[in-house]
Amino acid sequence: MSGIADVASRAGVSKATASRALTGHGYVAPETRERVQQAARDLGYVASSSAASLVTGRTHTIALVVPRVGRWYFGEIIEGIERSLMRLGYDLTLYVAEPDSRDRDRLYRHFLARKRFDGVIAVALEPDDSDLESLVGFAKPTVCIGNTLAGIVTLGIDNVAIGRMITQHLLALGHTRVAFIGATPEGDPPARDVDDRQEGYVQAMREAGLPVTVHPSALTITAGYSAATSALADADARPTAIVGACDEVAIGAIIAAQRLGIAVPSQLSAIGVDGHDYAEMFALTTVEQDPCRQGEDAVAMLMSMMDGTQPPERTTAPARMVMRASTTAPSST
Amino acid sequence: MSGIADVASRAGVSKATASRALTGHGYVAPETRERVQQAARDLGYVASSSAASLVTGRTHTIALVVPRVGRWYFGEIIEGIERSLMRLGYDLTLYVAEPDSRDRDRLYRHFLARKRFDGVIAVALEPDDSDLESLVGFAKPTVCIGNTLAGIVTLGIDNVAIGRMITQHLLALGHTRVAFIGATPEGDPPARDVDDRQEGYVQAMREAGLPVTVHPSALTITAGYSAATSALADADARPTAIVGACDEVAIGAIIAAQRLGIAVPSQLSAIGVDGHDYAEMFALTTVEQDPCRQGEDAVAMLMSMMDGTQPPERTTAPARMVMRASTTAPSST
Repeated sequence: MSGIADVASRAGVSKATASRALTGHGYVAPETRERVQQAARDLGYVASSSAASLVTGRTHTIALVVPRVGRWYFGEIIEGIERSLMRLGYDLTLYVAEPDSRDRDRLYRHFLARKRFDGVIAVALEPDDSDLESLVGFAKPTVCIGNTLAGIVTLGIDNVAIGRMITQHLLALGHTRVAFIGATPEGDPPARDVDDRQEGYVQAMREAGLPVTVHPSALTITAGYSAATSALADADARPTAIVGACDEVAIGAIIAAQRLGIAVPSQLSAIGVDGHDYAEMFALTTVEQDPCRQGEDAVAMLMSMMDGTQPPERTTAPARMVMRASTTAPSST
Repeated sequence: MSGIADVASRAGVSKATASRALTGHGYVAPETRERVQQAARDLGYVASSSAASLVTGRTHTIALVVPRVGRWYFGEIIEGIERSLMRLGYDLTLYVAEPDSRDRDRLYRHFLARKRFDGVIAVALEPDDSDLESLVGFAKPTVCIGNTLAGIVTLGIDNVAIGRMITQHLLALGHTRVAFIGATPEGDPPARDVDDRQEGYVQAMREAGLPVTVHPSALTITAGYSAATSALADADARPTAIVGACDEVAIGAIIAAQRLGIAVPSQLSAIGVDGHDYAEMFALTTVEQDPCRQGEDAVAMLMSMMDGTQPPERTTAPARMVMRASTTAPSST
């Protein structure tokens, strides 16, 4: 088996230069790097990562903690992070565990405690989560996507402001019976991002002197469909507009309305948050965010922290309202 | 910092026993294991994985290669694999790259070549993929989910048989104008699983002496919606039934039909493959598979290979037809 000395000799450089060229630590001229990499390929040389880690203390691995994979939002974040890390030559170790679950407990006490990573990205951590304490205890660069968390670098949209904005859009159109669908169901893991959107809805309704109506629903099209089916059941009392906690819920409500023969938007306006892949197909008015980009930005922030530059504690991710055909004035005005 | 000797001494066992209890290699009585683990926790002892890897040659990491994360099928597989690995104390390194992409090339030449894993699970590899050769070259236990691949242990549903079955279901109801939506668009990465479903459709139509009509579409609800919108545009020539390459495409077709005022199922039957989360909401007749379970099974197969037991080269994953309201006899019969 060829060693680093063979690679250095073949490339006509010192062992230190060959090592720098292959590990990416420290400056090497691009031509030299290419020559060393070619020599390594010619000789079939592959560095022993375990040995390299013992020497450098670096694993070139980032740990990512997400509550689940299946939702659009998490899928986009994972793809953004993975794409960025691949460009940088880093591995991504993925951990999937719901907040407050037994898996989550094992994750922090066993998996992350091994510290086989140079940094951590966690998505949708809760402010009162004991995981937070563990994360800080690892003393590794950490970026969280989603909620604001005291003492941790975080990146995410302003959920309260967005909840207010979409509600006020419906009020400005003349709606007075506006329901929020997507409150966290009892017994489900906490979800501060959605609670904050609901808080924004409540603020806007109270300021307008209008009654607040909140329906619980998980954050899926299917759950939104079920919740809306009951919310729209009573023809006399039903809302003329709904605020979805996210686009999946709002889309579920549109499908439910169609099944019930309620025309969207003339009899029911619907608005969401996210900019889901399906929003355009359902002509859904929404506030778009870009979780894929947030994943890329989180990686960039983590890398700068590993180089000793501390980003601001909170970065507000951009979001913009996109008007489509699912919202209009109520038919009675 | 506490060492393994401190842990052994506190637990009243030999260093070898303490090491076995903490690494999971070799037998240790459950009470002893618990005592050692408690001692390790009391002392704040965490094994150095890099050092352990050098000694054992084991990384306790599985590499997973998927073409993307966002589709339901891949999300389910990832969650199934991750849940199984977490139970076993293994880390999951996730690589996302499309077949035939530059990322894919980098993935095999750089990332996987470092061999920081004990085994590999790859999803949706193509039979003529050069990646296959690389995988075999790594000489690590490997399981692929999806297509049949000569020389590799694979696990997946029988796509040709399922394509035939769903087409024959529509023919048995009396349909003669049956179109397939979801052929791989030109220039897209190859997708043998979908090609095989199409092959099953073509076989069934030819055997019945009926004309074959195939529409390209990516495997998303949005793409299926667009493809179906054009496939259904001509009221005189349009099909009375469609076979979706997967549930997303079939659901997109149902939404397109609703928009065009075509009643499902009386004017258009639709059938899919997958058992997607949304299938029930759209009353979609489909053939269900369980990709989450396939992920779990792939992990079990990989573990048995690491223990020296070779599974059969091909395992056919179970699938079952679920009849719902999206298929019925054509209105003209």
